[in-house]
Amino acid sequence: MVKQVRAARTRRALVVAAAETFAREGYALATLPAISRRAGVSAGALHFHFASKDDLAVEVESAAADAVAELAERCRPAAAGARQLLVDAACGLLLATVTDPVVRAGFKLGGDPSRRNGARMLHWWRAWVHGLVVQAQAEGELARDVPPDVATAVIVAATVGFEALGAADRDWLAPERLAQLWTFVLPRPAAGGNEEAAGGTGGTGGEADGT
Amino acid sequence: MVKQVRAARTRRALVVAAAETFAREGYALATLPAISRRAGVSAGALHFHFASKDDLAVEVESAAADAVAELAERCRPAAAGARQLLVDAACGLLLATVTDPVVRAGFKLGGDPSRRNGARMLHWWRAWVHGLVVQAQAEGELARDVPPDVATAVIVAATVGFEALGAADRDWLAPERLAQLWTFVLPRPAAGGNEEAAGGTGGTGGEADGT
Repeated sequence: MVKQVRAARTRRALVVAAAETFAREGYALATLPAISRRAGVSAGALHFHFASKDDLAVEVESAAADAVAELAERCRPAAAGARQLLVDAACGLLLATVTDPVVRAGFKLGGDPSRRNGARMLHWWRAWVHGLVVQAQAEGELARDVPPDVATAVIVAATVGFEALGAADRDWLAPERLAQLWTFVLPRPAAGGNEEAAGGTGGTGGEADGT
Repeated sequence: MVKQVRAARTRRALVVAAAETFAREGYALATLPAISRRAGVSAGALHFHFASKDDLAVEVESAAADAVAELAERCRPAAAGARQLLVDAACGLLLATVTDPVVRAGFKLGGDPSRRNGARMLHWWRAWVHGLVVQAQAEGELARDVPPDVATAVIVAATVGFEALGAADRDWLAPERLAQLWTFVLPRPAAGGNEEAAGGTGGTGGEADGT
């Protein structure tokens, strides 16, 4: 039993160390010795858990998708509706790129030309965003003159872009700025418009208190 | 004279070959032999023009910034105003990432952790976008409730994100889709022209209360 706990802990340390290494160097330059050294385990222990670098990357990609799914769903109880949930989850995801190497690696591997099927996290994110865009429109909280595919594409692209820019310059990820951004990218229906006559406090108001 | 022309041609071939190699492999994995082979010149010719891989990357980064500046300015005569110019240039830039390896390399090196000052092209793009956002607001073509910094950040991040996603899946860069996107990211002022009387179809509008 104790042995199993220790094995699970070692495996997790290897996944985190691999994520840190992939996020920093990219997949191609990352080496197994660098990863086992960073995890503080022997090369033998690494090989006991993972047969290859590809194996490790697949586990990191899958852990990243799980982390983002969990992060997004954790925002659900506090959010007033689908639009608010989208804003909260998008902000949370970008802030997680600073604190969580697994999420950072998910972005990095998703755009890495040497990983053909590395975009598991981004695929999950895109599908989730699309579902919430449709729901926010049905709830009258998001302008309906925006085709859901277009809104989804802009949200996903902006997420990817902010992560990339934030990796080089942390200023891009200032929390109060992020809240403003998503407000801008997710326009409410026109006040008094023919949609759902949403109250329309408009502008950058609503999300500011989330920070 | 003929010699100078030939030297300029060789230099250009090396820059293009380096751009293709950096865009595909990233800076760290690119090798000088691979670049000279791709350019169809000898290792000696490469070293005659460029002392190091860093030298080559600096020239590619500078060529990318020039290419984007030229591309953006080429859109100017045909554009009806600053907002239209922004949309045209943003679409043109993303389409250029498909056809022009130098532009593609500009994005790649701009986000490459092994290039500290590689973002020359993105810095130019950001400053140019900011100037046009301010101008579009002054011309009454862009909603004024959007802070120029926020609009600029979203436009730059979306450009970076679409390039990254488009590199993995060309569908992200379908031209008719791109045009829709920028229209969405750059909301016009509320119908009725002046923003004090926001009756509004306007996106995030509503802070100005005419009713």
